[in-house]
Amino acid sequence: MARTQGSHSDITGPRIRAAALGLFARHGYAAVSMRQIAGEVGVQAGALYNYTPDKQTLLFELMRGHMEDLLAARAAEAAENPGADPMARLENFTRFHIRFHIERPDEVFIAYMELRNLDPANFAEIEHLRRAYEDELEMILRDGVGQGVFAVPDPRVASYAVIAMLNGVNTWYRSAGRLSLEEVETLYWDMVRKAVSA
Amino acid sequence: MARTQGSHSDITGPRIRAAALGLFARHGYAAVSMRQIAGEVGVQAGALYNYTPDKQTLLFELMRGHMEDLLAARAAEAAENPGADPMARLENFTRFHIRFHIERPDEVFIAYMELRNLDPANFAEIEHLRRAYEDELEMILRDGVGQGVFAVPDPRVASYAVIAMLNGVNTWYRSAGRLSLEEVETLYWDMVRKAVSA
Repeated sequence: MARTQGSHSDITGPRIRAAALGLFARHGYAAVSMRQIAGEVGVQAGALYNYTPDKQTLLFELMRGHMEDLLAARAAEAAENPGADPMARLENFTRFHIRFHIERPDEVFIAYMELRNLDPANFAEIEHLRRAYEDELEMILRDGVGQGVFAVPDPRVASYAVIAMLNGVNTWYRSAGRLSLEEVETLYWDMVRKAVSA
Repeated sequence: MARTQGSHSDITGPRIRAAALGLFARHGYAAVSMRQIAGEVGVQAGALYNYTPDKQTLLFELMRGHMEDLLAARAAEAAENPGADPMARLENFTRFHIRFHIERPDEVFIAYMELRNLDPANFAEIEHLRRAYEDELEMILRDGVGQGVFAVPDPRVASYAVIAMLNGVNTWYRSAGRLSLEEVETLYWDMVRKAVSA
């Protein structure tokens, strides 16, 4: 059968990334071999190298893809909700963060757990992207302090605190539980708002 | 040389646990072999089995030991600061949590990351201990709501949120950084207090 390189690559690349994501999340990066990933996809180990030079690149691309998706989704959400009011922007950020991350438990787990396994240059690039996301929250907090609606002695530390609090939802929330996601968002928004308000 | 079983065991057991902790934190449980742990300690792989039946038991005992240390330290701290005022108890809990965990980055990392690798019975026991710790915070919040000093619509969810926020300190705080631990405690206490206050 003649292979159409383009379309074959289009299908196999995402399947490889999905398999790697699942295996890394289940067993950890260091415990997973390229052979295992190939087996999960149903291709020969050698064929994997048509799509990625090595396992490190695969991990890096998963983490970079996750951060780029996050930044793109956040930019789209912010564009749909224009306005300069820091309180409204903070609520939008809070609800967005919970909704975006609850649907990506494996990516969130890996983003935290596998930082230690990134090569220094790759680590620096992921940190740069993460920083861009944190910067928006810090700017919202600074704007609110400037307008007197927020009282935050250290906006950088407060941005870490808010993001850590929101990330925690992933560790306990189950969609079949007693609370809807909308209710969870509202509970967290209530705490975030009070934590930073003047 | 005649071996004194008791004293030998007293020294080697902790060294095995320390080696396993470091290796699990660096590479992940699934990627670490009993042979590697033995190599780090400087004993034969076979000798390890005098101290632990298997790698799962080693992981479980590390996690259980961490939770038991946490509960014992917390009970001692609470005993030293008696009193029924929910605000004072919450401040004490907040500062204690940050101080206790900042000194144990590997244990904290493993407590989160390796839950997936516990056998079901072991997982249940760790969850039970963790629950006991969370229960104290939930009780402080409920008492404060009862006295009208806190406004927390869902004390259980609020306890998750507070603990996740405080755990986040470990991901960014460096003792050589611009803030002292005391300053960090105060910044977080300010946010926790406001987040739950009426």
